[in-house]
Amino acid sequence: MGATAELARFAADFRCEDLPPEVLRESKRCILNYLGVSLGAARHPAVGILADAILEMGGQEQATILGWRTRTSATNAALVNGAMSHLLDFDDTHLPTVIHPTGPVLSAALPLAEWKRLDGRHLMTALALGMEIELRIGMAVHPSHYDAGWHITGTVGTFGAAAASAWLLGLDAARFAHALGLAGTQAAGLREMFGSMAKSLHVGKAASNGMLAALLAAKGFTASTEVLEGRRGFCHVLAGDYDLSRALDGLGSRYIMLENGFKPYACGVVTHPTIDGIRQLARAHHLIPTEVAEIETRVHPLVLELTGKRSPRTGLEGKFSIYFCAAIAMIEGNAREAQFTDENVVRPDVTAMMDRVRVVVDPSLREGQSMVTIRTVDGRELNQRVEAAQGTPGNPVPDDELQEKFMELAQSTIPRDRAERLVEATLHLESLVDLRHLVELAAA
Amino acid sequence: MGATAELARFAADFRCEDLPPEVLRESKRCILNYLGVSLGAARHPAVGILADAILEMGGQEQATILGWRTRTSATNAALVNGAMSHLLDFDDTHLPTVIHPTGPVLSAALPLAEWKRLDGRHLMTALALGMEIELRIGMAVHPSHYDAGWHITGTVGTFGAAAASAWLLGLDAARFAHALGLAGTQAAGLREMFGSMAKSLHVGKAASNGMLAALLAAKGFTASTEVLEGRRGFCHVLAGDYDLSRALDGLGSRYIMLENGFKPYACGVVTHPTIDGIRQLARAHHLIPTEVAEIETRVHPLVLELTGKRSPRTGLEGKFSIYFCAAIAMIEGNAREAQFTDENVVRPDVTAMMDRVRVVVDPSLREGQSMVTIRTVDGRELNQRVEAAQGTPGNPVPDDELQEKFMELAQSTIPRDRAERLVEATLHLESLVDLRHLVELAAA
Repeated sequence: MGATAELARFAADFRCEDLPPEVLRESKRCILNYLGVSLGAARHPAVGILADAILEMGGQEQATILGWRTRTSATNAALVNGAMSHLLDFDDTHLPTVIHPTGPVLSAALPLAEWKRLDGRHLMTALALGMEIELRIGMAVHPSHYDAGWHITGTVGTFGAAAASAWLLGLDAARFAHALGLAGTQAAGLREMFGSMAKSLHVGKAASNGMLAALLAAKGFTASTEVLEGRRGFCHVLAGDYDLSRALDGLGSRYIMLENGFKPYACGVVTHPTIDGIRQLARAHHLIPTEVAEIETRVHPLVLELTGKRSPRTGLEGKFSIYFCAAIAMIEGNAREAQFTDENVVRPDVTAMMDRVRVVVDPSLREGQSMVTIRTVDGRELNQRVEAAQGTPGNPVPDDELQEKFMELAQSTIPRDRAERLVEATLHLESLVDLRHLVELAAA
Repeated sequence: MGATAELARFAADFRCEDLPPEVLRESKRCILNYLGVSLGAARHPAVGILADAILEMGGQEQATILGWRTRTSATNAALVNGAMSHLLDFDDTHLPTVIHPTGPVLSAALPLAEWKRLDGRHLMTALALGMEIELRIGMAVHPSHYDAGWHITGTVGTFGAAAASAWLLGLDAARFAHALGLAGTQAAGLREMFGSMAKSLHVGKAASNGMLAALLAAKGFTASTEVLEGRRGFCHVLAGDYDLSRALDGLGSRYIMLENGFKPYACGVVTHPTIDGIRQLARAHHLIPTEVAEIETRVHPLVLELTGKRSPRTGLEGKFSIYFCAAIAMIEGNAREAQFTDENVVRPDVTAMMDRVRVVVDPSLREGQSMVTIRTVDGRELNQRVEAAQGTPGNPVPDDELQEKFMELAQSTIPRDRAERLVEATLHLESLVDLRHLVELAAA
């Protein structure tokens, strides 16, 4: 049996009760994080344009645009919600493949489940299964696929969205393979788009294309059933160097989605070990900003390459400045959306602190590590080594911090009490009979 | 100025009156051929599935599904019509790039023009301009792009669809470049899908994705404006070996779409020189099948590689059997849709004739050439050399044969008198004020 058929067979046979408790638990965390980062972006101009365009096209009122008072077709909702979930660059990340896995999958599964009036248990299972297919295909083609210039969340995400949708629709193994084929042949998204709205569009397209793949396959539309291993299939054409045994190893016993991580901070992921170290030192020593003479952070070489911006001019640029991230973490104790404002990057106390930040490249450190030293005006030297940044598998973001992140983001779009009820509903998702209850809480 | 910006500037500045008369004339022929091959496929199961899926999703009644009594959103219509136009493998072909250029472009332009109530002149201009952008980008990336495994009509067609749509929407050069960016980052379609319904889906997706790109760019959605030349852009990621000067050479003076050709026969293009030679000999010598002792055809090596099937079991397989094509051309005098039936491939007189067909590979011949020899039972040897198969630029399909092809195909879906009026409307398209008139004739 080829890899495509093997994944299709596994997925078609999968049952809710097959999910281990820790996967079920993680899947709730993924949903909560997703709802937060999506609601936090619901008022973004890019979302407005997308919603405007699809509402002009119209559609049956099957599913809800998150953070809006609008229902549209399930594929339309998938498109807008998917883009929304990625706009803040604050979604989850599977570091070994750099896939942001929940966005494409849940942006397909949630509207489809809403449309078909399915329950919370099915949604969680579809998400976990879709992520598993997505991440495993990602592992098979990473890093050559990303290195070639593909936005892997957009491309491989299409498989995840198709798998979750196909499972929710109850496809048998044969049709499941066609759904994967139809997904792979729609997969797209160029890294050249980074820095533009198109980057988020990739996630929306992955979700809606993946759902379409499953809807078509359910009705008997055909594709190649060897989309992964075929000579002119996805892996060969879009990756070159790939190994499908990595997609199949431990299928059903080892869950890749457990290696997924959440970003605690709303900025470039390579800045996180530094922010962690600073927050830990500031708390442990009750530091106040005026006590700080110098912040030195020793980091992996990628940090300066990706976030070396000395003088950011906007909040968005601040997310890619290790200097600003370090300074604001020292001054405000966090680095969430509220910190990355256009005002903050030019605040005199912040820029003064930025001048006191020194970044030292140390190739002996890994990306998730840092060695932070704070020297105080009274001559103390405080050291903190970070072995695994918060949000990486060795150091998961605690539930309460994840909920705080959600609350901060969600309240930019929905009232506090509704956000709180949304947390509750997500925490007890396995007992939710009709997903419309969840979705109504997340509407404007 | 980069290649993307240059094409965008050219396209944004383009006016109806810029079109040379021969391009205008060819654009009508493209439209007629497109309507024929689409109507001929309107009852195909793949179209039924697609239409069923998009009608379930719903949409404003903006545009018509060809051959159906159904109006839906413009993007939905683009999806279904695009797939329909490619299903019979009977659409036009630009041989130097193997792009079937009209399908993706017109499947976007026609629904958009119908929705916006534009006139025939604008439709023809949008088609010609979209094809020009599409074919020029195709020339820049061919052959490495196709060789890598991409279905070029699906990928590059997205640019053509976006360009035609962006022009119809009146985008300025800046937004036009964003539309091209949004097109390129959605471009997809794997050759692995050949032989399944997904192959035709590529054309529908190219049309609907291209239109979406233009609609979004019109509202201010952003993309990279260097999608062609960027380091992680379309050409580099999907082709590797490319030359953008080929896209820009003679822009506005030389029209690549004039090198486009129509398939006179409903089968693999490499069989056409053989069919031409047999038809010419049969006509010139008033041959009847029982007189034929042997048909020998000397051909380019690709012919046996692509159409060497000795015993086709279905009409579809017959399209890829040089033996069946030669035999049926001898017996019925043509090789259109009507010839490729499941009955014909097993008819005793046909299989007997197939046994008399001998194919000789001759590497000195080009793909468009053949040397046909018919030996008769009474000992004559009749020779016909074909220098350029009908439907190639050196030997275009005459208007009357194109209209016959259209009539045969269209009548599988609409009545004869309506098909005739559709021919008339297309021949006088420059004076058609509202495209709905044309589209209503092409509805069921």
